[in-house]
Amino acid sequence: MTQTQLDLAVIPGDGIGPEVTAEALKVLHKALEGSGLEVKETRYSLGAEHWLATGETLSEETLADIRGRDAILFGAVGAAPGDTRIPSGILEREILLKLRFSLDHCVNLRPSRLYAGVPSPLADPGQVDFVVVREGTEGPYTGNGGALRVGTPQEIATEVSVNTAFGVERVVRDAFRRATQRRNKVTLVHKHNVLVYAGHLWKRTVEAVAAEFPGVEHDYLHVDAATIFLVTDPSRFDVIVTDNLFGDILTDLAGAVTGGIGLAASGNINIDRTAPSMFEPVHGSAPDIAGQQKADPTAAILSAALLLDHIGQPEAAARIQAAVRADVESRTPGEARTTSAVGDAVAARL
Amino acid sequence: MTQTQLDLAVIPGDGIGPEVTAEALKVLHKALEGSGLEVKETRYSLGAEHWLATGETLSEETLADIRGRDAILFGAVGAAPGDTRIPSGILEREILLKLRFSLDHCVNLRPSRLYAGVPSPLADPGQVDFVVVREGTEGPYTGNGGALRVGTPQEIATEVSVNTAFGVERVVRDAFRRATQRRNKVTLVHKHNVLVYAGHLWKRTVEAVAAEFPGVEHDYLHVDAATIFLVTDPSRFDVIVTDNLFGDILTDLAGAVTGGIGLAASGNINIDRTAPSMFEPVHGSAPDIAGQQKADPTAAILSAALLLDHIGQPEAAARIQAAVRADVESRTPGEARTTSAVGDAVAARL
Ligand SMILES: CC(C)[C@H](C(=O)O)[C@@H](O)C(=O)O
Ligand SMILES: CC(C)[C@H](C(=O)O)[C@@H](O)C(=O)O
Repeated sequence: MTQTQLDLAVIPGDGIGPEVTAEALKVLHKALEGSGLEVKETRYSLGAEHWLATGETLSEETLADIRGRDAILFGAVGAAPGDTRIPSGILEREILLKLRFSLDHCVNLRPSRLYAGVPSPLADPGQVDFVVVREGTEGPYTGNGGALRVGTPQEIATEVSVNTAFGVERVVRDAFRRATQRRNKVTLVHKHNVLVYAGHLWKRTVEAVAAEFPGVEHDYLHVDAATIFLVTDPSRFDVIVTDNLFGDILTDLAGAVTGGIGLAASGNINIDRTAPSMFEPVHGSAPDIAGQQKADPTAAILSAALLLDHIGQPEAAARIQAAVRADVESRTPGEARTTSAVGDAVAARL
Repeated sequence: MTQTQLDLAVIPGDGIGPEVTAEALKVLHKALEGSGLEVKETRYSLGAEHWLATGETLSEETLADIRGRDAILFGAVGAAPGDTRIPSGILEREILLKLRFSLDHCVNLRPSRLYAGVPSPLADPGQVDFVVVREGTEGPYTGNGGALRVGTPQEIATEVSVNTAFGVERVVRDAFRRATQRRNKVTLVHKHNVLVYAGHLWKRTVEAVAAEFPGVEHDYLHVDAATIFLVTDPSRFDVIVTDNLFGDILTDLAGAVTGGIGLAASGNINIDRTAPSMFEPVHGSAPDIAGQQKADPTAAILSAALLLDHIGQPEAAARIQAAVRADVESRTPGEARTTSAVGDAVAARL
């Protein structure tokens, strides 16, 4: 590791985004103390306010600037549901999804782990520790839809899920690779009995890639059945590989099962490192509790750990993960700490 | 009610289908004793065996014959996963989905209720009693996909979700109507921040129809968030209205949350009564336990109750539902009864 500077893009965003990002940065700095790696932060004030002031979501210029950084720490974007000044979904699509697609974040990595003592909504969750490798640049997220005769009784609206051998194979291979570092099991989740064309591409690709990994077993679940197992037997999963939309649904459910999306981290990974990867909590901007120091920054902090792991600082990452685990496992039910108190507590444990 | 005969199509199907259907018929007959309604059954031996013997899934002739009946009681279709003689998914698509689409089963009605004493995987489920109005003839289920350069590194596979004002409006109106018979609340589940065209059609339609039902409140959840609420606060739901694919996913999860899909019934409803509606358990053919009298026929029995309600026998339907409730609530955890013992017990309570 010869790198001496981490050139970090920070996009705090809306709602609770800035609060949780501040704690993630606090912990990240602390974890890197003595590492010899200096952190240079460039902040991008994207989100609702920027849109209201300029009518701009993410300009090509800003995107080009972000593209030059080493990695991105992302908070959350999204207007308050009642805010009619901002077209619904525009910030999510034109900032978050635009970054994922433009920077080729093909692997949306979402680990799920249930820490000891964390209350799960499940009566008997067992040991839960899996990762979802969610495809990030294809599927029904490509914006390939359209509408005709809008607003008339003859309206027709379509959404097209686009899946390519190139796009599917790289995430499937990534999933198998990760499985070799874990418990050697990959579960493909899809709905190939109905979505025949996309489903068979996914199935065939898994079969083909599996042949390269004889030590990894693999199975298949329809997405509907997968949600059942997530609540009846979540410990059966090691690595789940799935498409963009199914991954979106499964990881929110997985977050809930493992104690709430306040703990769920994610990485949007450019696996070829042709552009910076982006790390963000799975939760959104939660406008209802924004600015009140009520948000749990743990998901953001764990996202910073994924970032450090990705940029070649696995030890600092592991130390953050251990500190978070210790913090989470020492919580007392019903306790209310401020956002920054949680960040302080984790930092203190490093 | 002047009808004196119920002209019933029975499609037992594969795996546990025949076993659970037999119990549903046993209970249906018992519930109609003294009603003056005579049941005429026509059985259609569709499924894996028929396909292996004839190469036929569901011929136009058979479909036309079924179309002439008053209602359909359906078990389950689907080959064993390891059976390579039968192309994967063909029975599901060419029998089950073909029936739903050809007979215009636009409302796929799926009630979820947690009975007292039934073990839920949730630690604290609360009172769960909602219905999902799943659209049944559009969405990504239309078979409007395709693939190019299959088997090459340049393969591209697409799936098209088709949504029409006509198709969306009729199920949304059905959902609001049902809400007036329940707790006056409709939740639209979609993903309109990403699936913009379809999502906005659904949202606009809900707003428009809601104006006709001033006594019904309505809200909206993204599908990912909806899965969270299904495990953290399922009692918040009264009527959920959603598209074909999201409904598929949510109802399996809902079944799991309310004690397993062995209890989950469904009706595929032709709301204009231009063709027979079809009633089936949400579960599949479960080849692993087929023919062993291990399957719980409760979902099939409750589906028969939905059938009776639909054909104008609400009292017989309510008596079955009460008998099932009493049976389910008197179960002792871990007890193992045969499929037919459960049917006998429910019938005896009528
Ligand atoms: C905000 C939204 C576009 C996003 C998604 O659907 O990917 C979010 O739900 C997530 O999971 O990161
Ligand atoms: C068997 C399959 C085609 C079907 C569906 O996806 O609708 C099933 O999962 C269901 O929910 O009835």
